[in-house]
Amino acid sequence: MIPDKLRSQLDFLLEADKMKSIYRQTYILADESRGASMREFEGEREVHHRRENDAEHSFHLALFVMILAEYSNEPIDVLKTIKMVIVHDIVEIDAGDTYCYDTEGYMTKADRETAAADRLFGLLPPEQEREYRALWEEFERTDTPESRFAAAVDRMQPMLLNYMKGGKSWQEHGARYEQVYDRNKHIGDGSDTLWEYMHGLLENARENGML
Amino acid sequence: MIPDKLRSQLDFLLEADKMKSIYRQTYILADESRGASMREFEGEREVHHRRENDAEHSFHLALFVMILAEYSNEPIDVLKTIKMVIVHDIVEIDAGDTYCYDTEGYMTKADRETAAADRLFGLLPPEQEREYRALWEEFERTDTPESRFAAAVDRMQPMLLNYMKGGKSWQEHGARYEQVYDRNKHIGDGSDTLWEYMHGLLENARENGML
Repeated sequence: MIPDKLRSQLDFLLEADKMKSIYRQTYILADESRGASMREFEGEREVHHRRENDAEHSFHLALFVMILAEYSNEPIDVLKTIKMVIVHDIVEIDAGDTYCYDTEGYMTKADRETAAADRLFGLLPPEQEREYRALWEEFERTDTPESRFAAAVDRMQPMLLNYMKGGKSWQEHGARYEQVYDRNKHIGDGSDTLWEYMHGLLENARENGML
Repeated sequence: MIPDKLRSQLDFLLEADKMKSIYRQTYILADESRGASMREFEGEREVHHRRENDAEHSFHLALFVMILAEYSNEPIDVLKTIKMVIVHDIVEIDAGDTYCYDTEGYMTKADRETAAADRLFGLLPPEQEREYRALWEEFERTDTPESRFAAAVDRMQPMLLNYMKGGKSWQEHGARYEQVYDRNKHIGDGSDTLWEYMHGLLENARENGML
């Protein structure tokens, strides 16, 4: 007997596969494909400066939370924070990625994402729909220790990758120092230690002409 | 003052970026790239039948654990299980992906992966090195409720994607029904309910000539 509940859960998990095809503005660090199996990848070419997708970004954030939780300004529930970063971008399956310095895109972002949350979390059985919808809303409000730390790593991870890439994504979008500073200073709302480090990198980026 | 410990942790997190470039044998479901930003992706072509990489796989497993934990045969610590699936493939950064029906590759897999674990977990501060090394070893031994459930979703996720792709990866590797059955029956060690469901899919795959 396969419960209907399990079918709903699998529908959600299969729908989440689409996270692997939503590309962000950030580039991954590794410039070419690796691994023995990749050499057998029919028709594949070397991929240079490939952008990161939402599944990869969410994986990386989960690892950031696991490894860096001790730097949170306030004590956090690590499991809740990991769940939050794993689902925080799932609405982009319907609403798409909005680049953080795209002012126009931000005007319609909230409506698009609310409709997406209705459909996507609505695939889950009622109890899980409530849990994950609430986690996503908490992340958007950023008014709890967990959501402040999740939002901090969500800013820190692309900033760190972008710095390691010489500021490529900032340059492509003509992002100014003040914009990058104003957005990323909120890392300090989640972690003073992490913001101190990232602020140092940002000053360094300015001195080296990346911005 | 930036602690040396934080530098070690960031080294590990940046090294983990390489998970995004290690490709597996499984295909993702979405056949083409999605999202507004992707259309601006310079030089990008539509990607059909793209394989999944380790970062995407690990993201998906974390979500499987979050959503399906209730089906574990034994009670599990969900946080520990998520941490386990997030790091379980990290050794492939050095050791590469070994396809599950590649008998030859399996003969050297253990040695390659132990050396990789020494280097990669060794990037972390001592306490975290011990924690994550132990989680990886527990996953490899599969002798606890958490590792049995982690191993179950690690088999179930590619099997489910492969089924949804009409068995493409099985056919490419000439995998026989008995091989796929023998490997995946261990899903039942972690969850009878999930194996009952997946066993049904496998019978269906055989009847439909996918295997």
